[in-house]
Amino acid sequence: MRAEIIAVGSELLLGQIVNSNAQFISEQLAELGINVYYHTVVGDNPDRLKSVIEIAQTRSDIIIFTGGLGPTKDDLTKETISSLLNRRLVTDEQALSFIKDYFTVTKRTMTTNNLKQALVIEGSAVLKNDNGMAPGMGLKVDEIIYMLLPGPPKEMKPMFLKYGTDFLTKQVGITDRIESRVLRFLGIGESQLETDIEDIIDSQTNPTLAPLAGDGEVTLRITAKHPTSEGAQKMIDEVEKLISNRVGQFIYGYGATSVSVELYKLLSDKKLTISSAESLTGGLFQEQLTSVPGASSVVKGGIVCYSDEVKTDIIGVKKETIDLFGSVSEECAKELADKTRSRLNTDICISFTGVAGPSELEGNPVGKVFIGISIVNQPTKVYEYQLKGTRESIRNRTVKYGCYHLLKMLKGS
Amino acid sequence: MRAEIIAVGSELLLGQIVNSNAQFISEQLAELGINVYYHTVVGDNPDRLKSVIEIAQTRSDIIIFTGGLGPTKDDLTKETISSLLNRRLVTDEQALSFIKDYFTVTKRTMTTNNLKQALVIEGSAVLKNDNGMAPGMGLKVDEIIYMLLPGPPKEMKPMFLKYGTDFLTKQVGITDRIESRVLRFLGIGESQLETDIEDIIDSQTNPTLAPLAGDGEVTLRITAKHPTSEGAQKMIDEVEKLISNRVGQFIYGYGATSVSVELYKLLSDKKLTISSAESLTGGLFQEQLTSVPGASSVVKGGIVCYSDEVKTDIIGVKKETIDLFGSVSEECAKELADKTRSRLNTDICISFTGVAGPSELEGNPVGKVFIGISIVNQPTKVYEYQLKGTRESIRNRTVKYGCYHLLKMLKGS
Repeated sequence: MRAEIIAVGSELLLGQIVNSNAQFISEQLAELGINVYYHTVVGDNPDRLKSVIEIAQTRSDIIIFTGGLGPTKDDLTKETISSLLNRRLVTDEQALSFIKDYFTVTKRTMTTNNLKQALVIEGSAVLKNDNGMAPGMGLKVDEIIYMLLPGPPKEMKPMFLKYGTDFLTKQVGITDRIESRVLRFLGIGESQLETDIEDIIDSQTNPTLAPLAGDGEVTLRITAKHPTSEGAQKMIDEVEKLISNRVGQFIYGYGATSVSVELYKLLSDKKLTISSAESLTGGLFQEQLTSVPGASSVVKGGIVCYSDEVKTDIIGVKKETIDLFGSVSEECAKELADKTRSRLNTDICISFTGVAGPSELEGNPVGKVFIGISIVNQPTKVYEYQLKGTRESIRNRTVKYGCYHLLKMLKGS
Repeated sequence: MRAEIIAVGSELLLGQIVNSNAQFISEQLAELGINVYYHTVVGDNPDRLKSVIEIAQTRSDIIIFTGGLGPTKDDLTKETISSLLNRRLVTDEQALSFIKDYFTVTKRTMTTNNLKQALVIEGSAVLKNDNGMAPGMGLKVDEIIYMLLPGPPKEMKPMFLKYGTDFLTKQVGITDRIESRVLRFLGIGESQLETDIEDIIDSQTNPTLAPLAGDGEVTLRITAKHPTSEGAQKMIDEVEKLISNRVGQFIYGYGATSVSVELYKLLSDKKLTISSAESLTGGLFQEQLTSVPGASSVVKGGIVCYSDEVKTDIIGVKKETIDLFGSVSEECAKELADKTRSRLNTDICISFTGVAGPSELEGNPVGKVFIGISIVNQPTKVYEYQLKGTRESIRNRTVKYGCYHLLKMLKGS
């Protein structure tokens, strides 16, 4: 099966928005085992839209459209396809009553062009829009599968996941279920991970393994095909076990999580409170942890100690420590963590001091970083790094590495 | 002139990356007054690439390619075009010596496939790559302009801006200079801004005005065409003056800046120091301000006071204030700002307290926000907001509004 994604909208051709819909759908189709051969973007112009559809009909078995389903004159995707396929547009009663309800509830006046959104191509399967008014459609004509999806990603993505993939798998006759799981690693580089599990990656065809490097972390996607979802999950479990035996100590989470979220969960489970002393990171650790809803149950607060004065006067780091070792030092990181923990009366405190750049500090090169972790009734630990990269990347990775070490200490590993 | 952008790369069709190159080039072409009618994405496959080029030749006057100029077997953009146009590939001596130098300097061994990167289509203008090894190309054959650019955005974007636009304007015969300026607004909504300057927007054809709403802020792009750059700038100056007379108090900066950067600049100019007390925003204000290189000259530090205990014990807010008015109150915001400023001994302190959600707090609805600003020798001010949106958006906008009010107070407006 050869698939093509056609995005309709002049705003894409003006560069006002990026075609993230094509990326999303491509990723989903890859998971279903369907090959995407072309992406096309065309403006809100009926003749040019007609011509790109005619080209797609000569080279693709599945044509997925995004955009052009709205209420205005510019929106002409379904009109153009219905005319090309010689199919009438008919009112979908469910969509119509949904639109009418919307205007009743919001007490807004419905204009006649809103009725246009309830029109669908005759004979198509209607894909419900749970986040907007324009329904999607799926139909098969002359051995070509057409799918029409709305343009706004917040409407398109849930529709495709909830209704679109079902329609496709039935039409295409995909009987295997495809399941995938993403393992998230910290503390190991992409090339080291690949080297450590190279034989597993090379010998696997089902499940397949795909590593990907991000900012300071690596993910590994395991994808399995099996007639049942349970079977696919079992296959993934087995491969994960093999991987875990080799590099399990670097796995910190699964799927769309982050190390801050994992840290929040663990602190919350263990009913532990946390504070921080941030020099280098300027509040980034606290900001990330408090961006998790419910954070107030574990985060008491923290001190951003950008100047030495705040380190000594507010936190209580000894002046001699800074004079003797400098503010970018193991000793300073340790005192920052210990004293802030005791001042803020928390179970844990994490401290960050270092050089974010662009210039060196106190003779320390850009990227020199110390992370202190003070936990009640445990010896305080300090981790040292020499990082490379931009100011932003150094700060980001410092926070990630700090969260990672704290997670490990709390798990006792 | 009808332009088409063809991106070559299987990673785009797999959804591993988004086609941000097409967006960037489209935006630039729009500024040059060139209409983009199509974007196409095709994989690293010579037959399919050939077919999309043949289609483009029937419908476009300018075809811009991105990707497929690298050293591996997969990279075949210039090979395919040279064969279609019956033009040989020849070695570009400048590119070759640049590649050889790179391997000498980095002491790495050059493999023969790297030589492939120095090959260019005969008769083409070579576009220098200041950030990588593969040069770009521009040529005109049978009245069609072809431009080949590398795929990595960090190579492609500077190449296009520095060499690509020059080549295009000459080939297309654009004599007018197009200049644009972006005004950034805070404290006014997009629809209010449009209403206030509707007559100016409507009456202008050159310069043109384009408002765009972001998260809590609005930008207005003024674009002028004139035979000289100075002339275009003068036209922009005149329109800006008209706009400034109406809504000048809401303009906080120009171009690719942010309100944190503008705040840093002003504090630095006035040699003022700042601290913060962040409850709601959890460190976001400090994090943004300290992300600006050089921030340590103005930022002393701050306290993230997520719990009431930190507000009272560390900052010194009176317990009665919290008991009587709650931590989300004008009174608490005022004390947080005043006491933190005095504790951290800075000229200015800004405080943020409120409800980020998802649930209400102390009877206050999600989005209720107080921002306190304490400046030495000035009466402390508190600004109250009732915001809508997600936790993230509420926190972001709170910081932006705080910076905006502080900027205004410091400018005495």
